[in-house]
Amino acid sequence: MRAWEENIRKVIPYVPGEQPKQKNVIKLNTNENPYPPAPGVRRALLRFSDFSYDNLRKYPDPTADALVESIAGYYHLEKDQVFVGVGSDDVLAMAFLTFFNSSKPILFPDITYSFYDVWADLFHIPYERQPLDEKFRIVKSDYEKKNGGIIFPNPNAPTGILMELDEIEEIVKQNQDVIVIVDEAYIDFGGISALPLIEKYDNLLIVQTFSKSRSLAGMRVGYAMGNKTLIQYLNDVKYSFNSYTMNQIVLAAASEAVKDEAYFQGTRKKIIETRERVKKELKKLGFSFEDSMANFLFVTHEKYWARDIFEALKRSHIYVRYFNHPRIDNHLRISIGTDEEMDRLIAFLREYLEERKEQGKA
Amino acid sequence: MRAWEENIRKVIPYVPGEQPKQKNVIKLNTNENPYPPAPGVRRALLRFSDFSYDNLRKYPDPTADALVESIAGYYHLEKDQVFVGVGSDDVLAMAFLTFFNSSKPILFPDITYSFYDVWADLFHIPYERQPLDEKFRIVKSDYEKKNGGIIFPNPNAPTGILMELDEIEEIVKQNQDVIVIVDEAYIDFGGISALPLIEKYDNLLIVQTFSKSRSLAGMRVGYAMGNKTLIQYLNDVKYSFNSYTMNQIVLAAASEAVKDEAYFQGTRKKIIETRERVKKELKKLGFSFEDSMANFLFVTHEKYWARDIFEALKRSHIYVRYFNHPRIDNHLRISIGTDEEMDRLIAFLREYLEERKEQGKA
Repeated sequence: MRAWEENIRKVIPYVPGEQPKQKNVIKLNTNENPYPPAPGVRRALLRFSDFSYDNLRKYPDPTADALVESIAGYYHLEKDQVFVGVGSDDVLAMAFLTFFNSSKPILFPDITYSFYDVWADLFHIPYERQPLDEKFRIVKSDYEKKNGGIIFPNPNAPTGILMELDEIEEIVKQNQDVIVIVDEAYIDFGGISALPLIEKYDNLLIVQTFSKSRSLAGMRVGYAMGNKTLIQYLNDVKYSFNSYTMNQIVLAAASEAVKDEAYFQGTRKKIIETRERVKKELKKLGFSFEDSMANFLFVTHEKYWARDIFEALKRSHIYVRYFNHPRIDNHLRISIGTDEEMDRLIAFLREYLEERKEQGKA
Repeated sequence: MRAWEENIRKVIPYVPGEQPKQKNVIKLNTNENPYPPAPGVRRALLRFSDFSYDNLRKYPDPTADALVESIAGYYHLEKDQVFVGVGSDDVLAMAFLTFFNSSKPILFPDITYSFYDVWADLFHIPYERQPLDEKFRIVKSDYEKKNGGIIFPNPNAPTGILMELDEIEEIVKQNQDVIVIVDEAYIDFGGISALPLIEKYDNLLIVQTFSKSRSLAGMRVGYAMGNKTLIQYLNDVKYSFNSYTMNQIVLAAASEAVKDEAYFQGTRKKIIETRERVKKELKKLGFSFEDSMANFLFVTHEKYWARDIFEALKRSHIYVRYFNHPRIDNHLRISIGTDEEMDRLIAFLREYLEERKEQGKA
């Protein structure tokens, strides 16, 4: 070992979901939106290929004012209640670095977004996982012990299960000595946001993203909302890390996405309708799952192993997500695509299960 | 104080250079390139407003392969010797987090890029500033003491002074137990890169940026080059922080910028020629400065206070940079703009100094 290796921060990195490079796959493995971004995004891109082109040589606005203002306007907040970052991962990483500096462990569910323990390890933050109950529900009373902060997604990932607002309020209320982060990446698909609670509790931070309901995963935009003291602390750390994270094109394009309410409501509604229909179809095929309020379903089959189904789907170019983790290694997470994509998935599954049944008889 | 404030990482944030919002200013305060990005960047933007538009709903390639490949190809490196980030600030922040985990202080010059101490404070890294000599030169022997790592820009900022390659090699050689980072943000304006030394020293990391010589400050792209072990450690930390930092548009557009060698050489040459001409003009006006090999000059006047000149320039909508810091509070950093912009600067200075002289006589 070289001497300099002693000073290196060594981590086990997060492994992102597969991004298959071949064309013509049905990609239901990373919870992307099946519909393109709002048309205003295209207009913003055209401006940069035209009269705003020369501007690219200049630094972007470090305060990200245009985007912060759009988001604040949309949620009826003040600008100093909104923080933006390079995807909600950037926002969450900054929040861990800013708020979780206690010697007591932070708390999060055992089955949840798999980045929480990665950030905790990276920043040397102690943590304790709290087990979900047998129906994959967060157990409120687990979050009443002494801790250095709390984070959980709502709806939770990869389960899709939504927690009721009064339960969330209880957790926030019981933990006013620490910061509680509610990660609402999937809230726009039928859940009720805890956002109004930021007026009542100064220890609550809400994190959302443009990657799912706004169809902009490829552009990297996330945001946090909270009281202005929390947002100020977040900004101080962010400016000490990288003053210019949001590029000029992102600032313009994401602002346009926020402004097109009709498009947003339209795609949101389509995804929810498709999800509800797919729930019925999958039940008919012998899959079971807790009710999901996200843009994905977390399913298990009564007879066949998830991993086998996953491999069969992949062979036929349909990508879903399989986690080889304790308690969930017989589940598949299936993103909600277009109706046509879901019909192809269901047709494949129907045929596959039929074949397996035949093989079983033979 | 609320109880949760105890767990907050409190920092004094970096203050970026002013980004004036009014039009028709001559902006020579943040070392941006006066020429637009290469034409291929425009074509990449047009692709995203056209047939690649739908792709924006999907996550970008987390390995940033297209851009890494372009950079590696340009410098005749392997892909696993290149790391990319959201501007060189992101790359440097990741490098501090990854490589500077010693209880011994890291070393950097007292007059240098003002972000180094901000990152050290943010990550609780001990540091010691090494004073430049009276001619603002880095003193090589100051970097021979025990340390936890070394970083300096070459050419240095805000002085523009270039260090000879054999001196850099001496520092790298004397410090093989730690990582040495050479921050080459301004190397393309006439300096000689230390890049070939990465083949000889496994403790050397070279950091460069698209913000200056590639005219893409508004798009946020920086990169590091080193041996594959260093790059692997950097990537592990980066993937543990945010797997998807480089958005789809950036990956495509920045790759195009690398490919257009003729455009790059053309704008580089123009800036160097303008700089050399401006050096002569400013000398005639009574300014003095050490020789700069960057896209800026760091000047002081024999008779008049830098701060007064700064204020006068600003009133007439010409922005340069003034640092109210010990040892350099009678200097101005002036970015090299187009010939026309520099002519207007010189005309203003000539008139201003003439007036001051008249006032002095009266």
